[in-house]
Amino acid sequence: MKFARLGPLGHEIPVVVTGSEQEPRYLDVSSITADIDGAFLSGDGVARARDAAAAGELSPVTDAASLRVGAAIARPSAIICIGMNYAAHAAESGSEPPSVPIIFLKTPNTIAGPNDTVTIPKNSAKTDWEVELGVVIGQRASYLDSPADSIRHIAGFVTANDLSEREFQLEVSGGQWSKGKSSAGFSPVGPWLVTPDEVDYNALRLRSWINGEPRQDSSTSDFIFDVDYVIWHLSQYLVLEPGDLIMTGTPEGVALSGTYPYLRPGDVCEIEIEGLGRQRQEFAAYSA
Amino acid sequence: MKFARLGPLGHEIPVVVTGSEQEPRYLDVSSITADIDGAFLSGDGVARARDAAAAGELSPVTDAASLRVGAAIARPSAIICIGMNYAAHAAESGSEPPSVPIIFLKTPNTIAGPNDTVTIPKNSAKTDWEVELGVVIGQRASYLDSPADSIRHIAGFVTANDLSEREFQLEVSGGQWSKGKSSAGFSPVGPWLVTPDEVDYNALRLRSWINGEPRQDSSTSDFIFDVDYVIWHLSQYLVLEPGDLIMTGTPEGVALSGTYPYLRPGDVCEIEIEGLGRQRQEFAAYSA
Repeated sequence: MKFARLGPLGHEIPVVVTGSEQEPRYLDVSSITADIDGAFLSGDGVARARDAAAAGELSPVTDAASLRVGAAIARPSAIICIGMNYAAHAAESGSEPPSVPIIFLKTPNTIAGPNDTVTIPKNSAKTDWEVELGVVIGQRASYLDSPADSIRHIAGFVTANDLSEREFQLEVSGGQWSKGKSSAGFSPVGPWLVTPDEVDYNALRLRSWINGEPRQDSSTSDFIFDVDYVIWHLSQYLVLEPGDLIMTGTPEGVALSGTYPYLRPGDVCEIEIEGLGRQRQEFAAYSA
Repeated sequence: MKFARLGPLGHEIPVVVTGSEQEPRYLDVSSITADIDGAFLSGDGVARARDAAAAGELSPVTDAASLRVGAAIARPSAIICIGMNYAAHAAESGSEPPSVPIIFLKTPNTIAGPNDTVTIPKNSAKTDWEVELGVVIGQRASYLDSPADSIRHIAGFVTANDLSEREFQLEVSGGQWSKGKSSAGFSPVGPWLVTPDEVDYNALRLRSWINGEPRQDSSTSDFIFDVDYVIWHLSQYLVLEPGDLIMTGTPEGVALSGTYPYLRPGDVCEIEIEGLGRQRQEFAAYSA
């Protein structure tokens, strides 16, 4: 099952996405929930939405093509990221593969629609892309007994772009990455939230392109720490709340490697994860 | 003006605190706002609460002494911390004083009442205290022109304890600190939110005690980066939202120094900042 949020920023309506990728249909689920948020995902909302869709009780959104695609989920209580979770990306970043998951956070107000224009931050020369599998929490998770328990706490998956400013992250940060991870619009998420039954989440191809040229092209099967391990591990150190977003790390092929230039005004970044949909961001210059 | 939140977790009522420290009086402001949150702080809520209190329109809370003291503010959208912001603490941590503010984040669900019992995390041997001046944002702040602009974005100040697990933070973290900063209950805040007119926030004595023995005893006048500079600096890298909490760093005198033992079940931590009130946490062992 796929969910999305359509409409202007702050006024998105929650929808179920049916039909094919070529001919999607959108069913308004605002009769069941005001938003795709933690309360909806942790309760029986998903089941009720599925039943209502199957029973033909949801009205189609007829003007969907003209509506902005919002972030696939409401603003979470936390955006928790795993660093260096693909060996080849660790290498291109000049690091050894980690022996334990590395955790850092982005401020939740960075969340953005998958196709929203991104303003390159003021004084930025090193804005970079990172396609990542995003995991959305369905049930509160604290001190899980084993990675096998993780799946019961997952609401679904999203395509996510962990946009990063490398000078802010690495050169003027004292070594703590969040300074380069939290600029406005730096977490495009969506277009869809896809439930776990629809994807083989430890074997998804994920790709990025800049101005149509390929950049990243890997698979989540290359994770150092897979999704189930990551959720279990996180639950030993913090409490995962319904609706929270975990970004699971990015594979090789980012500008930080030195192989490609950083993003400039006018550039277009596209990212896609198999089964989770595609994003397209234009980058704009900062102006006061 | 002082605000507080009294009552069981999740059911706190917002109050104005008047009277003396020895004989405080509490006035219920729930007729004006449902909570001490971003919407209240960014609008005209504070002014309306002041007027209502002055006009005698607010009912006293007569059973205040029997009520739990909640966190002084509702759960923020972000908890943003400044690392190593006192030279002597950087030295005891084995670090050089930073040349730029170091930013890291705690998950917002760590916020807790000032006197709530804290469970030492499972598998923790190095739980540590950190008294810190907390700054609460009143008005959204992005790309401020200068530190002189910061004060217009500050709603007030709180006593905050940036509880930390040093093994999680430093030894099994890959160098990113958030893993040791985000355990449940790790951000006690309060008892009061105090408006800027009531405190000389760059010259406040801040202290901590463990089982009655003194630990930290410094002044915010020893900041490497003062409050106004910190808010301005943060606004260059992220958007500060109304109700967000900034923890401004801790002075020397924590267990990480090696001078004192880490917290054990049964220990009592007290912290106090001049004019902002005192906290008292008992530490309990984790049990499944």
